[in-house]
Amino acid sequence: MDTTAAAQVRSIFDKANFLQYLGIQLTSTGDGSCETTLDVQHRHLQQHGFVHAGVIATMADHTAGGAARAASGEHDVITIEFKVNFLRPASARKLICYGKVLRAGKSVIVSEAEVFAINDSEPKLIAKLTETLAVLD
Amino acid sequence: MDTTAAAQVRSIFDKANFLQYLGIQLTSTGDGSCETTLDVQHRHLQQHGFVHAGVIATMADHTAGGAARAASGEHDVITIEFKVNFLRPASARKLICYGKVLRAGKSVIVSEAEVFAINDSEPKLIAKLTETLAVLD
Amino acid sequence: MDTTAAAQVRSIFDKANFLQYLGIQLTSTGDGSCETTLDVQHRHLQQHGFVHAGVIATMADHTAGGAARAASGEHDVITIEFKVNFLRPASARKLICYGKVLRAGKSVIVSEAEVFAINDSEPKLIAKLTETLAVLD
Amino acid sequence: MDTTAAAQVRSIFDKANFLQYLGIQLTSTGDGSCETTLDVQHRHLQQHGFVHAGVIATMADHTAGGAARAASGEHDVITIEFKVNFLRPASARKLICYGKVLRAGKSVIVSEAEVFAINDSEPKLIAKLTETLAVLD
Repeated sequence: MDTTAAAQVRSIFDKANFLQYLGIQLTSTGDGSCETTLDVQHRHLQQHGFVHAGVIATMADHTAGGAARAASGEHDVITIEFKVNFLRPASARKLICYGKVLRAGKSVIVSEAEVFAINDSEPKLIAKLTETLAVLD
Repeated sequence: MDTTAAAQVRSIFDKANFLQYLGIQLTSTGDGSCETTLDVQHRHLQQHGFVHAGVIATMADHTAGGAARAASGEHDVITIEFKVNFLRPASARKLICYGKVLRAGKSVIVSEAEVFAINDSEPKLIAKLTETLAVLD
Repeated sequence: MDTTAAAQVRSIFDKANFLQYLGIQLTSTGDGSCETTLDVQHRHLQQHGFVHAGVIATMADHTAGGAARAASGEHDVITIEFKVNFLRPASARKLICYGKVLRAGKSVIVSEAEVFAINDSEPKLIAKLTETLAVLD
Repeated sequence: MDTTAAAQVRSIFDKANFLQYLGIQLTSTGDGSCETTLDVQHRHLQQHGFVHAGVIATMADHTAGGAARAASGEHDVITIEFKVNFLRPASARKLICYGKVLRAGKSVIVSEAEVFAINDSEPKLIAKLTETLAVLD
């Protein structure tokens, strides 16, 4: 992956206030792929003490979007829809998310992302997202 | 709607740290329905200056969940999947969300939610979510 | 709705072999809306004797697509994704489906569809679909 | 995988009239996995000459369901929702579908399926589905 593409992916994380506010961090990016992490804090939880579905969805959406941006060349992208399945209640001190492109078309890109909970044992898959992004002119 | 059910819906908003952190407020609840608002701040935005998809998804998810909780009697509920379509870029000073139950079964509830952008003109529908919740024992 | 638009919606039903093969019939169309019916036969069933999810999805997809086609002027449309929630097991002698457009953009249209089971009592909502279509040049 | 489980997966294909009517064939099954094929005929097409989204959705749903059935022991399963992204127009003489379980819980199973178009060149991924199934008592 060239440094320009990597910088463009970096840019959509740096310029997104909401990602900063949540503490989601870009850790790496490649050709049509992207990886992020989040240190879980009290502010991320829902009423049962698990990480809120909205936190997981935000992380998965933006990471899938980062993967799409890594595949869209000069063009910016914007999410037009996504779906997330929550596979296990998210009780974790840290989350890791891996996004990758399934199909990069000229006007539409489809990406997916998997979110893993990190505790003392091995990582557990807690959510899977599939999303469609529009490629902007 | 009886006051116990209304208090239970209120409770899932008051106890959800992430909802407080974002500033999403419960404004009303009824039989299988729920309404919330959000005053949009800089912290809610993404890289193009629109409200982040994750903010909209969080609001729609929790409001659809509130509607489900209003229909689940003594039982708590938890989101197992949702899908959101983003219909317009969300440029707004305020968001309003309406959630309602499509089908309340014994073990599974399906809800939907619509999110509207409020500016000086009439409200515009910016997103629609459908979600499945499990009813907890 | 002008007669040209109605004819174009009619055309995507007449020319779709799979719709004919299943017996799904267009009953009416309007501005951004579409209605279809299906007389349920043994060939439509799955292993428990209910209408197969694939039959319901096909009907909902094509009806939502018909509604989109009614809103796309000179342009043809193609489904890029959909999601269906199955709300009740479909035990019915007839299905009716109502599709409508949620948002008609220049390059993307979002539609939804509801499927009802018809028996001797009042119609029951058995499925709800939301879908995204690309507008072809 | 024991022969009982394999027979149970076989059974949900043999007893599903709609699968027979379409010509979708079970080719193999394993622990939490399932594979099917379809020889494409004129009856499977939509108005542009591509395989209808409903055919692809039916195949992906039932194959993901077969994978879930392979993981559910004595219990039967039923689809409660699915989402499909259509990645390329499906122009093919044959389709192959691979289903696998993402998460097998006691009451809910989440599966996914990928559909490939087979022509003279290498197989192309044309669709991806994610679905939730309820485990029946």
